[in-house]
Amino acid sequence: MDGQYLPMSEAKLSVLDWGFLHSDATYDTVHVWNGRFFRLNLHLDRFLGGVERLRMNLPYDREEITSILKNCVALSGHKSAYVEMICTRGSSPTFSRDPRQAENRFIAFAVPFGSVANKEQLERGLHVAISDIVRIPPQSVDPSIKNYHWLDLVKGLLDAYDMGAETALVLDTNGHIAEGPGFNVFLVKEGALKTPAFGVLPGITRRTVFDLCVEIGLSATATDIGRAEIKEADEVFITSTAGGIMPVTRIDDAVIGIGQVGPITRQLMDLYWRKHDDPAWSTVVAYP
Amino acid sequence: MDGQYLPMSEAKLSVLDWGFLHSDATYDTVHVWNGRFFRLNLHLDRFLGGVERLRMNLPYDREEITSILKNCVALSGHKSAYVEMICTRGSSPTFSRDPRQAENRFIAFAVPFGSVANKEQLERGLHVAISDIVRIPPQSVDPSIKNYHWLDLVKGLLDAYDMGAETALVLDTNGHIAEGPGFNVFLVKEGALKTPAFGVLPGITRRTVFDLCVEIGLSATATDIGRAEIKEADEVFITSTAGGIMPVTRIDDAVIGIGQVGPITRQLMDLYWRKHDDPAWSTVVAYP
Repeated sequence: MDGQYLPMSEAKLSVLDWGFLHSDATYDTVHVWNGRFFRLNLHLDRFLGGVERLRMNLPYDREEITSILKNCVALSGHKSAYVEMICTRGSSPTFSRDPRQAENRFIAFAVPFGSVANKEQLERGLHVAISDIVRIPPQSVDPSIKNYHWLDLVKGLLDAYDMGAETALVLDTNGHIAEGPGFNVFLVKEGALKTPAFGVLPGITRRTVFDLCVEIGLSATATDIGRAEIKEADEVFITSTAGGIMPVTRIDDAVIGIGQVGPITRQLMDLYWRKHDDPAWSTVVAYP
Repeated sequence: MDGQYLPMSEAKLSVLDWGFLHSDATYDTVHVWNGRFFRLNLHLDRFLGGVERLRMNLPYDREEITSILKNCVALSGHKSAYVEMICTRGSSPTFSRDPRQAENRFIAFAVPFGSVANKEQLERGLHVAISDIVRIPPQSVDPSIKNYHWLDLVKGLLDAYDMGAETALVLDTNGHIAEGPGFNVFLVKEGALKTPAFGVLPGITRRTVFDLCVEIGLSATATDIGRAEIKEADEVFITSTAGGIMPVTRIDDAVIGIGQVGPITRQLMDLYWRKHDDPAWSTVVAYP
């Protein structure tokens, strides 16, 4: 923060930063696994695109940000980490309400790697509930600008807990399945993959699934998915930087397939983690 | 913050607080004018309602919050202040993604009073542009929970600047007028007032206009307002705790009425400010 490396307990933001008071910020999260960033360039592309679309200016260029992220991880010592880069609107010296007058701020941090699904859930599959909440639509907030507008997702999550599930899926404005709190979703039916097309975060793990499908000759399509359709799938999984590819074996009261992690989900999970050592898809961290 | 009174420059939030990382927070802003809070109880009602609907728990009750807010203003010395109370989800000691495990946090601060419209704009009326941005709909985020999800409003504001205007109006999901960045909007046509009903913040200044209309025998209705309709009004004004009742004399290329602050707007502005001394509507601050 502000050009300094600090312990997480000292990493604090002014309460007057518009990144807090107006959630006027964009961010990206990349993970480090066994000392290597996974697909860092894709995360940087998305982050820098969001900063530009919000008309913010970073005090660092792409190479400097890469260097800062590497330093955060190296100094933290974490071999597997969840690494976040943030650009906030910042604040104006005059407390002006004009966002053009704010001094934008860059923050980055590394914390231990966390996953949406824990070990048990990865083995037996997650139990998910579909909430009636509608994901904030693109006409309001461009989902390709990764953002902190999560009250819809938090409400969906609380709804899901009420229904006895472990996480949630929320809807798009047409009542189709959209995404969940911090993840995209895929279904597999008769060997072909589908994922929602409209109003969802263009996730890097989602994109990675498309890339892996090309490698192993599977069909994957971004399209509308109905509430009933997803429950009748052979397999369902979610994708997130926080956990990778994670199986779902129950949606509301419906058991998905035979209620176990399916073969295509398993194949993609294995391939996904193997790719973490591939120099084409990963970037090494030099620890001190 | 955390039970301490600090200078604003030291009021800082952990970057790991979900109030920042998920904008998982609610707040309210009340103003102090000539040493008196204006309609503090209404702001406390809305704030405590939002905290409850987000299933958060405050470490203080209503009386303690009132006392903290008074202390913030008294210690700041500001006779006219913008006073914000905030409840954030906080963070979990284990960095859990489960919002139920977070320790919620209360923050309050007082800064000098600020207005959406400056002195010149209050005299000649604001110039406003209508953006095509749709305000985050109630199906996604309940607008009665006052929140920091402002990227739609920020985009509307940047659109408005591009169009040469000073602030913006955004739409609801049906293409009607909704509200603007930090304010509600009213029109006056043939002596009767209208304000959007759907998907807008239930503003305290908006409510105050309804109360004032009862006092002076004017009709005021919450209903749909079309884009064309608002440009054909006799008078238009916006309402916000940050500035009160503020006239609008131009929308896009349309001059409103005769292009000057209208008589009903003027009457309501005068009455609004006179009410700030009324003990029924205000609460005194005891400065040291």
